[in-house]
Amino acid sequence: MQPVSLREKFAQFQEHWSPKTVGELNGQAVRLVKFQGEFVWHHHEDEDEMFLVVQGRFRMDFRDHACWLSEGEFLIVPRGVEHRPVADEEVHVLLFEPVTTINTGNAGGDLTAPTTHL
Amino acid sequence: MQPVSLREKFAQFQEHWSPKTVGELNGQAVRLVKFQGEFVWHHHEDEDEMFLVVQGRFRMDFRDHACWLSEGEFLIVPRGVEHRPVADEEVHVLLFEPVTTINTGNAGGDLTAPTTHL
Repeated sequence: MQPVSLREKFAQFQEHWSPKTVGELNGQAVRLVKFQGEFVWHHHEDEDEMFLVVQGRFRMDFRDHACWLSEGEFLIVPRGVEHRPVADEEVHVLLFEPVTTINTGNAGGDLTAPTTHL
Repeated sequence: MQPVSLREKFAQFQEHWSPKTVGELNGQAVRLVKFQGEFVWHHHEDEDEMFLVVQGRFRMDFRDHACWLSEGEFLIVPRGVEHRPVADEEVHVLLFEPVTTINTGNAGGDLTAPTTHL
């Protein structure tokens, strides 16, 4: 039961698209991830997902529109909704999602990352 | 499914100790609250609670120790653990907790706030 510094945790990894679990509560995970480039289109069958921008900005693509998220903004993507994060420059994002959530959802593929803890 | 600005939401209320729900996912609520002064000792029987400081700093008292949280730091208080937030100056905090969570937990009393949405 210790305070966790987002800045310190983000400093501990460099890779993109590979969420790191930094806390768990009520069956949910708090994960930190760095985005850069274009991710894969996917959805999560049973999991809603929240994206909170800690530093930088990115675009979330949906099949019928897109929206930009900047530092201090969050977005909740409900289960079943196809989405694709795209970041022209590196962005630091905090995720809230069930511990069972896999980053690529239904899509799988090379960008699927193991769940690791920091 | 729209981005939510923490800054804009915090600007919409002034009262202390009264969490505002700004998002829900997976049975969990994202709530914003302003602390100032000393809260009541309490615990939550069945709910873990996360505190993320968005602006300012506060102290979390436990029965056997205390810790300080500053901007960009978070703390998870497991269910059953007695705690009391204390803020010398106003602090802006994001809570992540089950939607069923009542701010004063087992303690009740005058500081119990209704669940309101922003």
